Amino acid sequence: MRDLAPDYRFTPAFANPTGSAIRELFKYLAQPGMISFAGGYPAAEFFDQQALQLASEQALRDTPLDCLQYGATEGLLALREQLVALMGQRGVGIGVDDLLVTTGSQQGFDLLIKVLLAPGDTVLVERPTYPAAVQALRLAGMRMLSAATDEQGLDTVALAAQLADLPPGAIRLLYCVPTFANPTGACLPLARRVQLLELAVRHDFLLVEDDPYGALRFGGEAVASLLELSLQVPGAAGRVIHLSSLSKIVAPGLRVGWMIAPAAVRQRCLIAKQTSDLCTSPWTQRIAANYLASGALAAALPRLVAGYRAKCEAMLQGLQGMNEFLQVTPPAGGMFVWGRLVGGVDAQAVLQRAIEQNVLFVPGAAFYADAADLSSIRLSFAAPGVAAIAEGLERLRRAFELSN
Amino acid sequence: MRDLAPDYRFTPAFANPTGSAIRELFKYLAQPGMISFAGGYPAAEFFDQQALQLASEQALRDTPLDCLQYGATEGLLALREQLVALMGQRGVGIGVDDLLVTTGSQQGFDLLIKVLLAPGDTVLVERPTYPAAVQALRLAGMRMLSAATDEQGLDTVALAAQLADLPPGAIRLLYCVPTFANPTGACLPLARRVQLLELAVRHDFLLVEDDPYGALRFGGEAVASLLELSLQVPGAAGRVIHLSSLSKIVAPGLRVGWMIAPAAVRQRCLIAKQTSDLCTSPWTQRIAANYLASGALAAALPRLVAGYRAKCEAMLQGLQGMNEFLQVTPPAGGMFVWGRLVGGVDAQAVLQRAIEQNVLFVPGAAFYADAADLSSIRLSFAAPGVAAIAEGLERLRRAFELSN
Repeated sequence: MRDLAPDYRFTPAFANPTGSAIRELFKYLAQPGMISFAGGYPAAEFFDQQALQLASEQALRDTPLDCLQYGATEGLLALREQLVALMGQRGVGIGVDDLLVTTGSQQGFDLLIKVLLAPGDTVLVERPTYPAAVQALRLAGMRMLSAATDEQGLDTVALAAQLADLPPGAIRLLYCVPTFANPTGACLPLARRVQLLELAVRHDFLLVEDDPYGALRFGGEAVASLLELSLQVPGAAGRVIHLSSLSKIVAPGLRVGWMIAPAAVRQRCLIAKQTSDLCTSPWTQRIAANYLASGALAAALPRLVAGYRAKCEAMLQGLQGMNEFLQVTPPAGGMFVWGRLVGGVDAQAVLQRAIEQNVLFVPGAAFYADAADLSSIRLSFAAPGVAAIAEGLERLRRAFELSN
Repeated sequence: MRDLAPDYRFTPAFANPTGSAIRELFKYLAQPGMISFAGGYPAAEFFDQQALQLASEQALRDTPLDCLQYGATEGLLALREQLVALMGQRGVGIGVDDLLVTTGSQQGFDLLIKVLLAPGDTVLVERPTYPAAVQALRLAGMRMLSAATDEQGLDTVALAAQLADLPPGAIRLLYCVPTFANPTGACLPLARRVQLLELAVRHDFLLVEDDPYGALRFGGEAVASLLELSLQVPGAAGRVIHLSSLSKIVAPGLRVGWMIAPAAVRQRCLIAKQTSDLCTSPWTQRIAANYLASGALAAALPRLVAGYRAKCEAMLQGLQGMNEFLQVTPPAGGMFVWGRLVGGVDAQAVLQRAIEQNVLFVPGAAFYADAADLSSIRLSFAAPGVAAIAEGLERLRRAFELSN
């Protein structure tokens, strides 16, 4: 009797939850000599360690109380000033009060779910999309619908048709990564961005624009964010909530992200954050503020972009001779190459061969809210070096050959 | 038309949410010469800055990737090892896998709500209790009932009677701060702790034991935690979820808390944390791990306890001559003195006089889930120095005199 565990009566979404499919692959990382195209981790060799060390020393020396004491829930003013300047360089003119610092952009989405969505609400996501967004929505009890994408991102013509078949107000919001998407690497063209905003107005839904990768552009002209464009599309102002992060361009260990949202949304997210974690670590906020104020990011970004571009080119070059097995679309930025196995080969079966060959990738099924394409795969070029990329692709070729 | 804000259709709890009442007092802190007994912030002069600086330098120099890269959701192993040792000193024998690092203990409670509670579930809280717990429960749509307390904490006899009147299984969990409670400072005696555990078994509810202040004991013998006692009370094992934090004993800026919970609960909280913030800042986790491993906390804690004890004694001494206005119960630890204004004087009215006299406190109404005692007040002795405490109490006396 005394050893009987209590009945915890978990909420329905947590009765039998499954963790991240990508996380399940982590155990293979310990396999000696493994080359991983699986994770979305930034490259360790690109961390701007020296400048971050200066920023860190300065933080505790010059502003110890900023580091050690509780901070304001909205974020350290010194950091918000720097993030406002960064957003200005990205074409978005805002003030310090328009921005809420979050514990990574992942927290931004968590706060939005709390504030905006009730269990059973319907949310649109891209097909394929970022798994942690799907997981967050699923655990909060949301209904999800997928919106079709092609190599340019969301197919807005198909979306218009999809929305026309739904009752008015059926969709509460659409979550998307319009610039160098995870997992497809696609960058949504300007015309489609405008169409997407017009659809949001016509069908009365909100747009969550998640933008962790936008600064990692390998070529071509920058495309305006949905947030910037929302001011130009009639009725679209106030419909875009923009999430971004320092994780991919400075360091994930800071856990510094931010949300730009209309006042009514932002103020409620602030109240939700008070009971989520009170404040994002003011210590890492202060380090981030010093780092940005020093101009180090502006100096580091060209190196960072060149480094990821070289890795991306190495991967695309290696894949060129393998298009009998895998068809890919070259991305113009970000960290990922997305592909389809030729002839409907099952990605999970190939993964088993790949693990035997000591190379990892993520089967695409992990990126679908529904009706997964089982032949799709995601390859990340971010973490391994150029030589490891070439070697890893040779191993992948053997895995493909063994799977055919 | 284009300037019309969209209808955001916020969730019911966020339709018209109110922020923290304590936060509302923040604006008066800028008033020149203000002495504040209002906040629960730790004393800036007690921060162990030199040892933290060493821990910080060591972190980036010796373990840069631990600091900068994504970390495991369960927390850095090096930190969990130190926290296991700390809990061992507190009489709780656990392993590194029994513990989940959280972004402050506030996040621990947020994760528990997601995993364990559905809107409309009934939760018991102490009367009075920690406002951010009430706010978290309210925003998640929970029903709350208050359990009576006296100067020793939860009145378990009254609680037994209260529970006997409820249908079986009506209460999902009870949230409490049994050791040096916020706001009352009370420390629940051993016999009542056992009775509380027995009631949890008999009426099938869980206990959330929030313990941020337990290490700040000014005298007397330590009382075993509910977590420790749960192994001795038949049927109680697996019913206690223990939350703690480094915020009050090292620095809130770390945002390092932890949860000790039965595997079934902990594993689900881990999954919930993946979509809440992926991981607590591994940088500050690494700093905390180094700080604890250096033995600095063990060296600092006696100084810290002596410092807060001196402040508490200064406050109690100053209040001795004021018991015609305010009756208080001396706490044996923590950061707070709780009192009742004599003659049913309204605390909010006194606060206005106090602000005019340049002294702040928190009217007790902020600490009730229901049926607030409007004559109660909370005084924190943690932040002001001993001289400021004496001066602040003189001002408070004038405010009392002007209010009578």
